[in-house]
Amino acid sequence: MAEKEENEIIEHHVSEEMEKKRSRTRDSHSFLESATISEKEGHSSTQSSHRLLAYSDALISIIATIMILPVAHTKIEPDQELQESLQQLLTTKIAVYLMTFLIVTVAWAAHIRLFQVIERIDDFLALLNLACMMLITFLPYTFSLMATFPEVPLGILLFCACAIVIGLIQAVIVIYGFGHPYLLNDHIQISENQTFYKRHILKIILRVPAFCFFAGIFSFIFFPLSYVLLALVIFLPYITQSLKWCGNKIVGRQEELPESMLLYSYHPSEPLSKERVEAFTDGVYAIVATLLILDICEDNVPDRNEVKEKYQGSLIAALSEFGPEFLAYFGSFVTVGLLWFVHHSLFLHVTKATRFMGLLNTFSLACVGGLPLAYQLTHEFTKNSRNELEAIQISCVIIFFAGIFQLAIWVTALFNERETLHPYVRYGGREHAFMFAKLALYPSVTLTTFFLTCILSKFSAQIFHLMQIVVPFAFLALRVLVSVALSLLKLVFRPAKPMHNALEEDESRLPFNDVVS
Amino acid sequence: MAEKEENEIIEHHVSEEMEKKRSRTRDSHSFLESATISEKEGHSSTQSSHRLLAYSDALISIIATIMILPVAHTKIEPDQELQESLQQLLTTKIAVYLMTFLIVTVAWAAHIRLFQVIERIDDFLALLNLACMMLITFLPYTFSLMATFPEVPLGILLFCACAIVIGLIQAVIVIYGFGHPYLLNDHIQISENQTFYKRHILKIILRVPAFCFFAGIFSFIFFPLSYVLLALVIFLPYITQSLKWCGNKIVGRQEELPESMLLYSYHPSEPLSKERVEAFTDGVYAIVATLLILDICEDNVPDRNEVKEKYQGSLIAALSEFGPEFLAYFGSFVTVGLLWFVHHSLFLHVTKATRFMGLLNTFSLACVGGLPLAYQLTHEFTKNSRNELEAIQISCVIIFFAGIFQLAIWVTALFNERETLHPYVRYGGREHAFMFAKLALYPSVTLTTFFLTCILSKFSAQIFHLMQIVVPFAFLALRVLVSVALSLLKLVFRPAKPMHNALEEDESRLPFNDVVS
Repeated sequence: MAEKEENEIIEHHVSEEMEKKRSRTRDSHSFLESATISEKEGHSSTQSSHRLLAYSDALISIIATIMILPVAHTKIEPDQELQESLQQLLTTKIAVYLMTFLIVTVAWAAHIRLFQVIERIDDFLALLNLACMMLITFLPYTFSLMATFPEVPLGILLFCACAIVIGLIQAVIVIYGFGHPYLLNDHIQISENQTFYKRHILKIILRVPAFCFFAGIFSFIFFPLSYVLLALVIFLPYITQSLKWCGNKIVGRQEELPESMLLYSYHPSEPLSKERVEAFTDGVYAIVATLLILDICEDNVPDRNEVKEKYQGSLIAALSEFGPEFLAYFGSFVTVGLLWFVHHSLFLHVTKATRFMGLLNTFSLACVGGLPLAYQLTHEFTKNSRNELEAIQISCVIIFFAGIFQLAIWVTALFNERETLHPYVRYGGREHAFMFAKLALYPSVTLTTFFLTCILSKFSAQIFHLMQIVVPFAFLALRVLVSVALSLLKLVFRPAKPMHNALEEDESRLPFNDVVS
Repeated sequence: MAEKEENEIIEHHVSEEMEKKRSRTRDSHSFLESATISEKEGHSSTQSSHRLLAYSDALISIIATIMILPVAHTKIEPDQELQESLQQLLTTKIAVYLMTFLIVTVAWAAHIRLFQVIERIDDFLALLNLACMMLITFLPYTFSLMATFPEVPLGILLFCACAIVIGLIQAVIVIYGFGHPYLLNDHIQISENQTFYKRHILKIILRVPAFCFFAGIFSFIFFPLSYVLLALVIFLPYITQSLKWCGNKIVGRQEELPESMLLYSYHPSEPLSKERVEAFTDGVYAIVATLLILDICEDNVPDRNEVKEKYQGSLIAALSEFGPEFLAYFGSFVTVGLLWFVHHSLFLHVTKATRFMGLLNTFSLACVGGLPLAYQLTHEFTKNSRNELEAIQISCVIIFFAGIFQLAIWVTALFNERETLHPYVRYGGREHAFMFAKLALYPSVTLTTFFLTCILSKFSAQIFHLMQIVVPFAFLALRVLVSVALSLLKLVFRPAKPMHNALEEDESRLPFNDVVS
């Protein structure tokens, strides 16, 4: 029985993919027919866009996380209070990091949206996309200029220039795509009102350069207005959407858009390519996991002369100076790795990602980006100092939020579980409790650690290290722990057992029917 | 006609993938049957390993390229001669970078080999793999310790300890995999001599820790011997293979191993997962493309006070100081992006990657890794100095080799084109000439630039900048250029025209038959 169910997980995923392929082949057949009728000119070789998008995701994920480097490399004097220096940091560098992360993920979401419409590429589009990527990688710099010199128009001008050119390139991509309809999304390709789609998409894309153009002009006249304009361009779609949603809730009207209309709608359940969310997430986790080793490899190889003079030629003595750095590296790698593992388990069972889930994922990733920094802080101070305690508590808070946002993705998915989740992890599925335990492990452990360090502040370092060592083993033994907990729960609620059993049988049948239907 | 052929490219790829899926489904069916007979215990949810491998590839590609950072951050005094400081650099840092790249790619190849046998994972294997990754990310550091203190055994001990633990973890993965046969490669799963496979694979995997164990012991007694042992462990399989190949050539015997025996054989045509080669390559290109912007974002935001005092508050004046850095960034991003584009075009038409192609790809990537550094050098010196000329020539040489190794991949693929290439780019296919032009563009342009800078050394900077500007447009117009060149060639060789035509017709038919068959 257990065997069968596992096979179904694999088969489910495989059959899903096969269906995708099949529909693609089917459509490329129909396109073959339509194309031979409508067009005859020789156009360059059409390609699947898969790898181009993977490369773009890799680039964007690096760019999203790099502004954490200036934060991480800010030196804190050992005698300085952490609170104080944190405030100093918070004012600019951390804010720049978070804002860059937000802006880059906004650009990334626009990129996903665009290539959900243009599903096939040729050489021309590949080169245009590379140009677009180059400009996106430049955005963080313009942003840090803006943050350092808020009253000088140059930063805002550079940012606007980049945004305008990116918008224009995207518009060219759309126009080129609609000029060569075999590059388009299958749905739009067979749709009758292609011109409607084209105008709708162009309108949304060109809104950004238009706003930026005015923001650039206003930066000379009255620069606060240009900041307002830039904020508008990012938040306006969200604001109108949430207002609309609230309005609908109050009136009680429930309008369900057909899925095809959700493209370029900014609706919270607008579909977001699951594959690309995964690729972007993998990129961010990979960069963050290796962030500390980058520094270690560059800075922590002791100098030959120094070893001779200062440590009497003993390399081990010289290296033990760097001990805290290594500990921080292993600690942060393990934590980031396990958070990735949780994300991986979650998305294995998510069948469709929506824009709202993507937003939660972004928040979770932004927290993960700060993790290596927090870990580095925990090992930088003398034992039992007030700074050490604070650094440990900050680490706990960051891990807690990274975990909570992952949990929130699952909860969001559960609200619409028929569409977004695999039957096994839906409410009542056999993996439901296990999944919940996986997602809840880090938030609950860090919350416990946080409160323990508040009470037993003397032993904070020990508690923290114990937590770090226990968690990987907890993940290894999680399945056993969950089944023990479930049987304990059953034992406690024994009176309700007969009813429970009946329910369970129903539950174990549910996935079956779902797979068949 | 053109339409049809394009659709065939897409269809070819799609049908290929579908076949893969189908065979997987088929086998998971057969496994379903075999598993329900042989095993009854409940094991945790089995998963496709795709995303785990993508994440591992991302981590390994970052680690492979990070040792370029210490090279890039070595400051060269403007009055120092480049030759001199390059020699100083070459002795340690560049050697460390290249050796790290080699070692990490060896570890990566072992990882591919392992997960070509273990095709499905569960939570336990995912966590083991993360532990393995953590140790791999630590290898570059031990390596730079070895290079800085070659006579101290600590570096070699750390390296050996890591290698031993990695080997043991891989052995555990193999034993676990063979203990749960539904995780295995479909071919091995249905094979009768599973125990033979298991022993063969374990023997190869455990050879590395065994060698490292002895190397570690000898590091105390006579350390040069341990370096010899470590070199042996990396090069031995290659040496025996090439000796065997030479022997076969001399004797004239041609032994063709069946594909199933090629797993874990170190044979040059051992299959290498094409998907993973692409993922690793994308990772390296993405890191390298953004390497310079990382530095720019961190170091090149001018200080508020400095701008006030030194530049009388003019931000533009302050930024123009950094002009060369920005130019270097855009130049290297464009070059890396276009080399990626060539690689992408090539692998779109490669249907199967072999170990030898992987090796050539590694060499190409190692060159690409040095590119941002070379570009940075080109802009660091005063106009028309001897250093500038040398920096430009070094850049040309690096790009040339990166391009030549890509071309070599294609040539290797052509030797066995029926198995490794899509019909369109085989000798005589309609995309053959276009593909060749794409691959040959960078090598030929850089070679021309190199010789031009030798002759017209006064205008070297202008020639180099012209090259940078011309190349992207050359890529855009390449299809037109190729067809012009082909028709010119035809015009020149007019007498042979009738024969040529007959040949061409044959050629244009060839792909068709291949697709059908």
